[in-house]
Amino acid sequence: MERLHFEDELKTLKQRLLNMGALVEERVHRAVLALMERRPELAEEVIAADQEINDLQIEIDDRALKLLALQAPMATDLRLITSAMKINADLERIGDQAVNIAQNAVKLLNHPPIKPIIDIPRMAEAAQDMTRDALDSFVKKDVEMARGVLKRDDEVDALKDAVFRVLLTYMMADPATIERAIGLILVSRNLERIADHATNIAEDVIFLVEGKDVRHHHMEPA
Amino acid sequence: MERLHFEDELKTLKQRLLNMGALVEERVHRAVLALMERRPELAEEVIAADQEINDLQIEIDDRALKLLALQAPMATDLRLITSAMKINADLERIGDQAVNIAQNAVKLLNHPPIKPIIDIPRMAEAAQDMTRDALDSFVKKDVEMARGVLKRDDEVDALKDAVFRVLLTYMMADPATIERAIGLILVSRNLERIADHATNIAEDVIFLVEGKDVRHHHMEPA
Repeated sequence: MERLHFEDELKTLKQRLLNMGALVEERVHRAVLALMERRPELAEEVIAADQEINDLQIEIDDRALKLLALQAPMATDLRLITSAMKINADLERIGDQAVNIAQNAVKLLNHPPIKPIIDIPRMAEAAQDMTRDALDSFVKKDVEMARGVLKRDDEVDALKDAVFRVLLTYMMADPATIERAIGLILVSRNLERIADHATNIAEDVIFLVEGKDVRHHHMEPA
Repeated sequence: MERLHFEDELKTLKQRLLNMGALVEERVHRAVLALMERRPELAEEVIAADQEINDLQIEIDDRALKLLALQAPMATDLRLITSAMKINADLERIGDQAVNIAQNAVKLLNHPPIKPIIDIPRMAEAAQDMTRDALDSFVKKDVEMARGVLKRDDEVDALKDAVFRVLLTYMMADPATIERAIGLILVSRNLERIADHATNIAEDVIFLVEGKDVRHHHMEPA
């Protein structure tokens, strides 16, 4: 494969990764919307459509392997491609979390709501923003943007703790709410895990960009 | 790098991955032990020692990249090495879960116990076995063993549901137990995530072995 073709294929790989990111972000959005607007059919849609994400993950993995196989890549390309494979795995797991939220939503929607559903929408928004920014920072190799994602992770953790405390009060006051409150706590943990995956991606980006020279030194032929 | 040297380096990579596996497995064991035997100092040890696991992850990642860079590997070696990188990431996250269990243990040990601590030790044992078997199945390329890991994941899910139901009953009966019960539910979720990571590894192994021919076909030079 000539260099030009290689560059084209690398560009396609990044583009597909962006598609994957947009897809999982949309699934998270819909899963939380299903919960907030009490639309179980929307939650079922999210659950049913997971295969699409799995298929896209395999396609992206294939593209990355093909690039590694067809050309002995330079050290920087090498790390870019293996990073893309890791990011791909994180995105797929964000998709899994969207399915988990949808499953929790289906169960929760069998019961009357506990109102208000507190900071869960804010957590969801932050987790989606983090996913988008982490992926953008990869494509643009923008370390500052990646660092912004790490900062927002603390915000999500604080929201998660706040959600927990409020729901704990509800449960203490009225044990009839326990099962529903725990369902909401689990949703907040799903969102926390999404933020964790976005954080993993951002950390990969920082390492990719700033660890480059160090790594390059390690990879000089012995 | 000559082929023989390459084989040696590949063997070292596998060996280090086994070391990593043994290390994280021990951390899970200790974190759960700290909870069961009410030893907060042991939990603090697990929390403090996390850097060792992170360092080992970086070392293994480095070795894998070096192998990819120094020799344009054959298609089968290529997938083996990229699988090792993915497995490495899963092991590191199992280590993170051990830290989370230890953190939950520290909090729980501030309060008198809820007895009995039900099926959590059984869940822990299953999750550790799955981690060990998943890694063994990688080194031995043993698909049957990998499939065994997938089966045990259902067992862990069933135990998790059982833990949840019992703790829900406790909470309903006595709201004073709510905070501690939720702490234990979170530990059971940590163990579930460890089992999930072991499952990811086992799935990688199955794909590595059975998807080989298909993948090889894809990677013929265009």
